[in-house]
This record gives sequence, C-alpha cells and structure tokens, in this order.
Amino acid sequence: MQHKLKIIPLGGVGEIGKNMTVIEYGNDILIIDCGLIFPDEEMPGIDAVIPDMTYLEQNKDRIRGMCITHGHEDHIGAIPYAMERFRCPIYGTRFTNALIRHKLNEHHLNDVEVNDVDPGQAVDLGCFRIEFIKTGHSIAGAVAFAIRTPIGTLIHTGDFKIDLTPIDGEPIDINRFAYYGSKGVLALLSDSTNVERAGFTQSEKEIGKTFEQCFSRALGRVIVATFASNVYRIQQVADVAIAHGRVICFQGRSMEQVVRYAQELGYLHIPTDKIVRVEHLKNLPDSMVCVMTTGSQGEPMSGLFRMANSTHKLNVGAGDAVIISASAIPGNERGVSRVINALYEKGVDVVYDRMADVHVSGHACAGELKLMLSIIKPKYFIPVHGEARHLRMHAGLAMELGIAPERTFIAHNGAVIELTARKGQMTETVQAGSLMVDGLDQIEDAVLRDRKTLSEDGLVSAIIVLDAETGRLLAPVEIYSRGFIYMRDNEPLITEASTLVYETAKRFEESDKGEYASVKNAVKSRLKSFLYDKTGRTPMILPIVIEV
Amino acid sequence: MQHKLKIIPLGGVGEIGKNMTVIEYGNDILIIDCGLIFPDEEMPGIDAVIPDMTYLEQNKDRIRGMCITHGHEDHIGAIPYAMERFRCPIYGTRFTNALIRHKLNEHHLNDVEVNDVDPGQAVDLGCFRIEFIKTGHSIAGAVAFAIRTPIGTLIHTGDFKIDLTPIDGEPIDINRFAYYGSKGVLALLSDSTNVERAGFTQSEKEIGKTFEQCFSRALGRVIVATFASNVYRIQQVADVAIAHGRVICFQGRSMEQVVRYAQELGYLHIPTDKIVRVEHLKNLPDSMVCVMTTGSQGEPMSGLFRMANSTHKLNVGAGDAVIISASAIPGNERGVSRVINALYEKGVDVVYDRMADVHVSGHACAGELKLMLSIIKPKYFIPVHGEARHLRMHAGLAMELGIAPERTFIAHNGAVIELTARKGQMTETVQAGSLMVDGLDQIEDAVLRDRKTLSEDGLVSAIIVLDAETGRLLAPVEIYSRGFIYMRDNEPLITEASTLVYETAKRFEESDKGEYASVKNAVKSRLKSFLYDKTGRTPMILPIVIEV
Repeated sequence: MQHKLKIIPLGGVGEIGKNMTVIEYGNDILIIDCGLIFPDEEMPGIDAVIPDMTYLEQNKDRIRGMCITHGHEDHIGAIPYAMERFRCPIYGTRFTNALIRHKLNEHHLNDVEVNDVDPGQAVDLGCFRIEFIKTGHSIAGAVAFAIRTPIGTLIHTGDFKIDLTPIDGEPIDINRFAYYGSKGVLALLSDSTNVERAGFTQSEKEIGKTFEQCFSRALGRVIVATFASNVYRIQQVADVAIAHGRVICFQGRSMEQVVRYAQELGYLHIPTDKIVRVEHLKNLPDSMVCVMTTGSQGEPMSGLFRMANSTHKLNVGAGDAVIISASAIPGNERGVSRVINALYEKGVDVVYDRMADVHVSGHACAGELKLMLSIIKPKYFIPVHGEARHLRMHAGLAMELGIAPERTFIAHNGAVIELTARKGQMTETVQAGSLMVDGLDQIEDAVLRDRKTLSEDGLVSAIIVLDAETGRLLAPVEIYSRGFIYMRDNEPLITEASTLVYETAKRFEESDKGEYASVKNAVKSRLKSFLYDKTGRTPMILPIVIEV
Repeated sequence: MQHKLKIIPLGGVGEIGKNMTVIEYGNDILIIDCGLIFPDEEMPGIDAVIPDMTYLEQNKDRIRGMCITHGHEDHIGAIPYAMERFRCPIYGTRFTNALIRHKLNEHHLNDVEVNDVDPGQAVDLGCFRIEFIKTGHSIAGAVAFAIRTPIGTLIHTGDFKIDLTPIDGEPIDINRFAYYGSKGVLALLSDSTNVERAGFTQSEKEIGKTFEQCFSRALGRVIVATFASNVYRIQQVADVAIAHGRVICFQGRSMEQVVRYAQELGYLHIPTDKIVRVEHLKNLPDSMVCVMTTGSQGEPMSGLFRMANSTHKLNVGAGDAVIISASAIPGNERGVSRVINALYEKGVDVVYDRMADVHVSGHACAGELKLMLSIIKPKYFIPVHGEARHLRMHAGLAMELGIAPERTFIAHNGAVIELTARKGQMTETVQAGSLMVDGLDQIEDAVLRDRKTLSEDGLVSAIIVLDAETGRLLAPVEIYSRGFIYMRDNEPLITEASTLVYETAKRFEESDKGEYASVKNAVKSRLKSFLYDKTGRTPMILPIVIEV
C-alpha cells in the first residue's frame, strides 16, 4: 500500500520566524529547522516564542531526525526546548552545528547527537534521503535540502539568495538545483521573505565599495556594527581594514564567540596577528584600529549601545567613525535611531543604511524567486518563511510562471498538506501555535494579559481584615498601589479611598460568607469608579480580604 | 538700552515632536507652536508627552500671544494643557484654528481667544510683527513666519516642502521668502525632518498616477487609508474616484470631522452629492464605491483596523482593493504590517508604499533645505524639528553653503540662544523637558518605572497580619500575584512560598517595631530568591504588614 506524503509546517508560515516543518511518510518523520521568534512589544517579559510541538511529542517514536538549514535563531533557537521534549539526531553543516552545540551546552543538553554534514553529502533518515545543497545567505554554512521520498523529491530552499560573487568564492550550487529540476520535483518549499522587492538582491561584494570609501576617509577609529553571525560581512570588513593598515578588535559576546568558531572551522580567514584584544588598543594610534561589534539593532547592553551611552571601555567620540552595517528589523527602528542620535551627540561620524550602501539582504528578491521556480519547475508549490502577504505574493509569482493556483498551498501553521503521486490537498490540521517562554517555563495568556493591564495603569490593592467569626472589620482598610500614582504625593486621595472602601466593606458585617464575593465586587467597582473620577486612570483593582 | 533677542526652544530640538519655541525681547514673549509627542513603548499607559512649560508659567505676564504654523498634533496637541497653565491669544490660519477650537472644546476651554489670520497678513504682538507666509505641507493651511523684531527679522519655516504643483494650485510663496532674504534675515529656524534624504521631495501630484492606475483596474470597492488631516490627499483621491464614477464615503471620526471643517472653510471641494453615508453603500454596486478611512498607521480602533479585523460594518473581502496612502511612522511598522497581513488573509488586494508610489512626504529633502538656506541667507542658523542627527546634518548643509559653524546653533530643549545685532551665543538654560500625561494629570518617573517592572514579570504580594501589641502572627501568610504565574495551576508553589514567608515573618515576634523594616526586607529577599529559583522570573515583591 502506498502512503501519503505529509508536509506540516509547525512554524514559519503566516509569520517571519520560528521556522519548523514536519515531513512525514508512513512511519517516518523528518523535521526541518526548529526556530524561535523574538517577542514583540505585546509580550512584555517574554524571553522567546517557540512553536507548539505537541504533535511531535505525540509522535516522538516516529521521528528519525532533524535537519537544519542554517544557524540563525529563527531556525535553531527552539532546539533546546525541543530536545527537552523529545530526542532525535540533528544534522547540519559544521558552522551551523557549532552554534547548535553552543546552545545545547548552555541548556546542559550535552548528550544530544549532532552530526556534521557537508554540502554535497546526503543522509538517510527512515525512508528519506536528504541531500545538502550549498546556498548563499547572510550566515556561513547555509544549505537547501533535496529530500527524496518514496513518491518524489521535495526541495526546501531554506533562507537563500542567489549571490554569484559571494565572499567565500563558493556560489550557490545552481547546477544541483537544475539537476533536480530536470529530473522532476514533486514540491518546492521556498523562502518568501523578500518577495515584495522586485529584481535581484545585491551581491555581498557590492557594499565593499562603501567600506573602501569609509576606511579611506577615516582618520580615527572605525567601528563597524553588524550581525554577529554574518561571517561574510566580518570577513569583508576585516579584509578592507587590514588593507588600510588596521588591526581588528571584536566586541560583544556573540561576536567574539562566532569569530572563534568561524576561524576554527575555516569559514573565516583573518590572520591571528591582526586580531587584538580591547586592552591593547590604548597602545595603538586610532588610525590603526578597527572595532567590529554587536548592536546593529540598537539592542540594550550590546557593544554599540554601550559605546553610544558611554558605558563601554572604548570611549568613542569626535574623530571616530561608526558604520552600522545592517538594516533595522521591523520593531527595532526606534532603538537603532536612539543609538544613532546618541553617537551623533558625541560627535561621532555615523554611516547607516539611509545614507550609503552598507548592507545587503540575505534573502532572494522576486527575480531570484522566479528563477528558482523556473529551475525547479515543481508540481506543487508551498511558499514558506513569510507573513500572509509574502506567501500570497509568492503564490502570485508562481502563477505567473504557470503553476496553477490549485497546485500552490498557502498554508497556516498546523496545516497538513497531503501529497500523493497523483494529487495534492490540504486536509486536516494538527495542533500548532506559539508557546511563550518566560524564565524556566512557558507562560499562560491570562498572565500576559494581566501584565499588559498592569503596564497600562498599574495596580491598586485594598486590604480588608475581618474577624473570621463575626465578619467585623478589625482594622482600617490599607491601600497599596504600584505603577498607578506616586503614593507619597497623594496621601489625601489614598485616605479618601481607604474610607470609601471601609464604608462599603462594612457590608461584610451583615453578610453571610456566601455573600462575601458580592461585597468584594462592590468594593472593587466602587474603588474603580472613584479612582477613575479622580485621576482618569483605570488601574487593576485587587481587593484582598483577610480573615483572622 | 538695547535688549537681547532670545530664542528658546522648549520642544522639538533633539527630537521629532512636541514643537514649541519661545521668542523673547525685553518684556515681550511670543510662542511659536505648542505640540505633543505620542508616547513610545517605553511609556506604557501614557496618553501624551508635552513640553515642560514651567518657564512660561513663571513668565506668563509677558506672553503676548501664540502663533501656530499648522494643525498637526506635534504643533497644536499641547495647546489645551498650555491654556490650563496660562492664557494668551492664539493666531493661526482658518483651517489650523478649526482644529484648535475643536481641541479646546473637548477640554472645555471655550473662552480662549483664537484669531484667524490669512497668509500674507501680519499681526502685531508686543514688539513683534509676525507675517504669515504660505508654505506647502501634508496638511492644509500651513504657514511659515517672518518675525520682525527690534534687532532684525527671524524666519521660522514651520514644517514645509517646496511643492511647485500643489493640489490647491497655490504653491509656497517663494517670492516672499526671497523678499526677506534680500532685505537681510537675522536668523533662520528651519525644518530638519527629511535632511537625510538627498534631492527634492516629490510633488503631491506625482502620486496621482498611482491612484489613476488603481482605480482603473479596480472592479470592487476601493478603500483608501490616509492621515485624516491630509486634505490635499483627500481631494486628490476624491477627484480620481469621482472621475471613475464613484461616490465617496468617509470613515473614522477624525476623518469625518476634518472633511466637514475643510469643506466648510473651502479647503476641500467635493460635491456634496458625491459624499454618502456608510448606511447607503449597500444600495450601490461595489464598482461605484470609494471609502476613505483613518488607520494608515495600523492604529487599533481606526477604520482600517476594524475593517481588517471584521469588526467594521463594511465587510471587506475578495474583490475589494485597499490603498494605504501613507508610510509607517517609526514605531508603527509592526502595527501596519499586521493590518496588511489581515487584509491579505481576507483576500483583499492591498497596495502600500513598498509596492507603489502611494505616498509623498510633507517635509523638504536636503535639496529644498539648501534652496531655503540660499534664498534666506541668514546671519544665524538654527536647525529645528529634528533629532540630534538631523540637526547636525542640517548644520552640515549650512556649512556647505557658507554659514560658518559658529553662526549655527545646534540647540537642546531649554537652551537660550541670545542674539544681538552684533553677536550670537548660547548662554544659560531654562527648565525644559517632557511631561507625561496619563488621564487627568502628569505622571512621575518612579510610577512609570514600576509599570515597566510590573509588565516584565508581574507582582507578588505577601500579606502578613500581626497583633499590634505583641507582634504575634495572627494568620497564615496570604500570597497574591498578578502577571507572574497562573495561580490556580501553581498551588504547591504558592503554598511553599507562604510557608517560607511565615517562617521568616516569625522574626516579627521577637523584634521591636524599630526592626520591622529589616524583617520586611528579609521577607522580600527570601521570597524573591525562592521564586527566581523555581521559575526563573523576578516579579516585583510587595510584602504588606497589617497590624490588628
């Protein structure tokens, strides 16, 4: 009997982030990527948002392995959480695995099996044979997968761009994609991030000119902020800096770490005598110094943030040049803007993406996406890695190229896309969604809603002490507040509120225990409307009844 | 004796928003603009941020009047707050004043004197003669001021762009600026918002082509979201819609309001039989309908937001086209993105700034700023309306045009720029800053810090009841939390915490009243570290001791 092939995205469709896709045939499950998404302003206090993995927990005996396209957080960030729920071997390229091992180590998960696979090699997991194909992206070691299944081949691009002049000299393996295209591909899963932009993404090399100009002009120190994992950018900047007689100092924990791994594994080639520690910079003239640092997103506590706010040992100022070699990820615009302004106020010369070509994207634009679709000529098409609008636009491109809309699946997380050799359809849905992690555990929606309310207008608590036997009020009502008003300056208001609550609470004395809840509600609503009249604010009201 | 002329920005330098400038000579004070800034994600629950006006309150007898450049919130939003602190007559163009009167009315301040002034007219306030000069901006009725003072003329551009083909057919009065330039200008205060962009801002008319295309292609309803106050955009869209045989329906309270005022005052010319109420749309074929709505910034509760989330009586869906004719103001990117995705999910065809020319800025780019500097040829230059980087870049342009750096003042809020006929300098500083308004009153920093903490990890309160005489514990310790964990699912943790606090609180029994504070601190720190160990979270801890 022939089984159906199921493709189930658990994350990364209808959103950018927490990518995770399940490929299933008969008794075998293969997982592609396992990422997280960083919380937005609607999720105060949350550390990370990860995919709901209930479906995998329920089917953990069938999981044969997890293949990772590359080492960005939205592809590897949820691995430790996954490995606490189920175990399976992990497969990635050497650089990807260095980052995964580091992460597992931080979570005391040193016994997870992590296997290095080079581009061009393949691994067999259950009935699947997964070939790793070199691509290009804004991190080293990125690959796509050709997944041979009993009923046909799937191509999963991972995140990619078509850069024919990459910094490492090894462009995306177009020929291998073309090979599969000519043999026939059942389905293509392709990156949709940049589908809104027409044409082709610039080559990483294009921005070399800007660095060349900046370094030629600079008389003082040159500080370049970029993503720690963008090894190609780091290599490019280091080459220009060294050519201009400068040494490199890396700042920021993740930057230092990535550089160490990348140097060890041969992804980065910077002569070790050109790398200096921050302590040694004071012995060098400014014109011989290049600093590469984290903080291109304006993150508090990052290297660049601390430099801008004078809490870093590099005391930057007039004469120094800062290049922010990144563009702001949506949601970070204000943070980046604050850092730029702080640097300007210190007299630093800042170069950023509005002013010059200091950054190129790691994702394919519409032109490259059309090229990929044309090379692969898939029977079915599943746009992934995009919000609703990206998926729909990508589906639109596929239609222009002759892929009928009924063969394109715009999925949602948890959707089950069932393919046979003859037909394809979206059928049932499995449990999927977002788990918010705060500290050691996930957090409930109700708690998050409370945080939101607390953040808006704070909390006022009224403590009512009753005699457990008689219901008599034993003490004046105490009012406490946090995040509402400054209590010391508002004693008359607090006193009035206390008296008011006392009056209402008198009703406890005439009530049975069964009626206590309604008295408590009366206290709550009276206090609420009193405070609103006086202040125009609506804090959370917490009446507490203590029986002694 | 000759007085010094003082220029004191109280808002709008080192920031974009809450513009307010004080011009002072001898016994006379003139105020230019009085705006607010909308709070960012660091200010939960705050309604508005306004300039600290202490300096004006202290000198209220010398205030001769307030002149307003145009009706955007960052120029008029703080007027009601100002009028509660001091009174003076207000001067603006008719459209600006319609918006101001509406605002005063909402604050029950109907007795404030508001005077209409047409471009080309002048008013005398103390020793100042202020001429209103027509400019162009993304709102009707925008003007610059030529302020004649006893020691020379100041030009304050307000927000402007140089649009030579504006929708209302009345371009910026370049000749008048040139007139003052040739007579000699003591100081120029000029808008810096768009200084990062080279060249000239496009004319409002340029985007007419995009509307023309969208309307030609559309078969269903066309919904255009834009800023309510952008009367020119509204006129332009209405003209295209009517030419395509459509009627217009306005949605969103502020949009309906602005249209009413603008029609009454002759700033907007839409035949009244072409304006229909939303109730009548159901009688019309979709191809005859154009809706103009608020919500271009993704604001919750706006017209577009409610349409995208199916809570608006217009049930938009497949066949409808939405044009978002605006670009996202920094900080609003995610909100706009969510609305676009929600519309895509409903099958709506969405056109927005990444895809087509649907918006032009209302602010001058570097080319126009240079033109303004060249026409005015001021002796002193004060870049305004910009963050640190914008002011410095604008100063850089002035330097290119031959204005020596020592004659350019990069000010901060509260800086006093003193000019005489012979010299200019920044001298003392007056009180200035930001007041955060929440509900009926301003809010203290400490309260805001508490809100931030509460929003991160919530609050845990431990209530300890003591015998007032003996210090004996009278009841078990009650633990309450909000925004920390879901209490019902965590009873064992709560019980353990309660026992732990009880043990520590036993020390009250052996302590004098004078030692209570230290016992309370011991409770706090023990509870804090217990909860951190168990959950990895650090909620605010509020120990409450009740003596009965």
